Amino acid sequence: MSDPPTAKDRAMCRAHTIELRVRYCECDPMGVAHHSAFPIWFEVGRTELLRARGGNYRELEASGVLLAVVRLEVKYRKPARYDDLLHLETRLLTAGHVKIEHEYELRRGRDLLAVGSTTLACLDRTGQLQPLPDSLRTPDAPKGARP
Amino acid sequence: MSDPPTAKDRAMCRAHTIELRVRYCECDPMGVAHHSAFPIWFEVGRTELLRARGGNYRELEASGVLLAVVRLEVKYRKPARYDDLLHLETRLLTAGHVKIEHEYELRRGRDLLAVGSTTLACLDRTGQLQPLPDSLRTPDAPKGARP
Amino acid sequence: MSDPPTAKDRAMCRAHTIELRVRYCECDPMGVAHHSAFPIWFEVGRTELLRARGGNYRELEASGVLLAVVRLEVKYRKPARYDDLLHLETRLLTAGHVKIEHEYELRRGRDLLAVGSTTLACLDRTGQLQPLPDSLRTPDAPKGARP
Amino acid sequence: MSDPPTAKDRAMCRAHTIELRVRYCECDPMGVAHHSAFPIWFEVGRTELLRARGGNYRELEASGVLLAVVRLEVKYRKPARYDDLLHLETRLLTAGHVKIEHEYELRRGRDLLAVGSTTLACLDRTGQLQPLPDSLRTPDAPKGARP
Repeated sequence: MSDPPTAKDRAMCRAHTIELRVRYCECDPMGVAHHSAFPIWFEVGRTELLRARGGNYRELEASGVLLAVVRLEVKYRKPARYDDLLHLETRLLTAGHVKIEHEYELRRGRDLLAVGSTTLACLDRTGQLQPLPDSLRTPDAPKGARP
Repeated sequence: MSDPPTAKDRAMCRAHTIELRVRYCECDPMGVAHHSAFPIWFEVGRTELLRARGGNYRELEASGVLLAVVRLEVKYRKPARYDDLLHLETRLLTAGHVKIEHEYELRRGRDLLAVGSTTLACLDRTGQLQPLPDSLRTPDAPKGARP
Repeated sequence: MSDPPTAKDRAMCRAHTIELRVRYCECDPMGVAHHSAFPIWFEVGRTELLRARGGNYRELEASGVLLAVVRLEVKYRKPARYDDLLHLETRLLTAGHVKIEHEYELRRGRDLLAVGSTTLACLDRTGQLQPLPDSLRTPDAPKGARP
Repeated sequence: MSDPPTAKDRAMCRAHTIELRVRYCECDPMGVAHHSAFPIWFEVGRTELLRARGGNYRELEASGVLLAVVRLEVKYRKPARYDDLLHLETRLLTAGHVKIEHEYELRRGRDLLAVGSTTLACLDRTGQLQPLPDSLRTPDAPKGARP
């Protein structure tokens, strides 16, 4: 019988997979999920990865730490259809001085439907860059890196 | 040659029609605009009616006057399709002590596609009801009406 | 130990509750879920109620049975916030000759956030009304009712 | 007095600018347009560029020519706010054997808010790659290029 995860264990968690059901309204006249739905799913993936790591984005935002998407890339390989049950893996690559990099893989069963990546920047309530809180940084991020 | 509209003229404006082009992403696998797009168009109609009346919702919100939708009704008569050019008429019915009632008619040419109505409530930043500013009230609204 | 539900048991199922997590992109500058998100959640609720009854909307649509929303009403009581975990109960009221009526209650814990109702019409691929398949009708619906 | 544009003139048109008003529902709790709104605006930009070139995406799709987004990249420089009036320039780079490349610049006045790029693939109704119709190809695209 294993011990429950400690705060440290959770903070080490770098990848998390969620299940998503494609909504009807996310699909377009081609009968497939519209490409603008994928960044929304990635955002859900980030929220759940942070929760798995013991954090909470709503609380972060309430404390004045805003994470804004400053770069998005998606490569669409195969269409997702209405009512498909998908799995999205969100991986945290690095969280450095002010920026966080994630990668995404979206699958239906063993089929890879899309891959993506994002860069988030840490902003204060006035929209200015601010250092990431220590709780969000990854230990291997380059120290003192600038945006 | 007519005079430009005065502030009073504009405040008398009770109806305003905007043109809308149906976006691809607003359409669903049936090939028609998804029913959740219509309340979004109604909101655009309210923004533009307020502007035609000499107001500005962004400035209202910045001043602490939030207008939250507390009731929505839509009757869908005919489908709207991708790339259709539509006309939406937004009519202000009454703006009383704390609530505002609007009605909507959405047309493609002479075809009536949908009708709708909404009730907005005036809230402060904490989400509590507050009296509508005088600038938003209609002169014929019942005085001292409560929500 | 109880028997697994039969097809008949499932068809008797008239209400179904799903859990929903409010997405960041569903929230607006007031910090609460935008009112256009609620009809989308109701649609998710209908999809899952039909599945609980042993049906599948994707297969229905593939067989030429389209269910279009022809009426929507929502009353918003309290705001839903980003990351809130909500419960949506979807109830099938009647499914008659060509139309289906549903009601909805959205809660966060014991707080009732919104109630709603919709009417769906059964259409063929050309957008014409067609009779609902027997598998979708409720036994107590008025017989031979017309739209 | 100049002649009206000929079909050839229009087909030479490689860039087109549209005006966009940021919708309330496109904004998030940070008070700025959500990053998933930008790909939707880019799609509106492509629709209008094609129209300016004398084409029509709805008719293309009705004729069995589907253009699916297979790659999307966006770099977000400055936030767009509710009710901002934006200008989006959509540029057609190349339209070759089966793929089309576009670039985008989104501005508010002289401020550059975002740049983006997309690749579309030409599909038939079964989702298989098919050659782009000649009417869509750019003369300088590499001949016989494969995806």
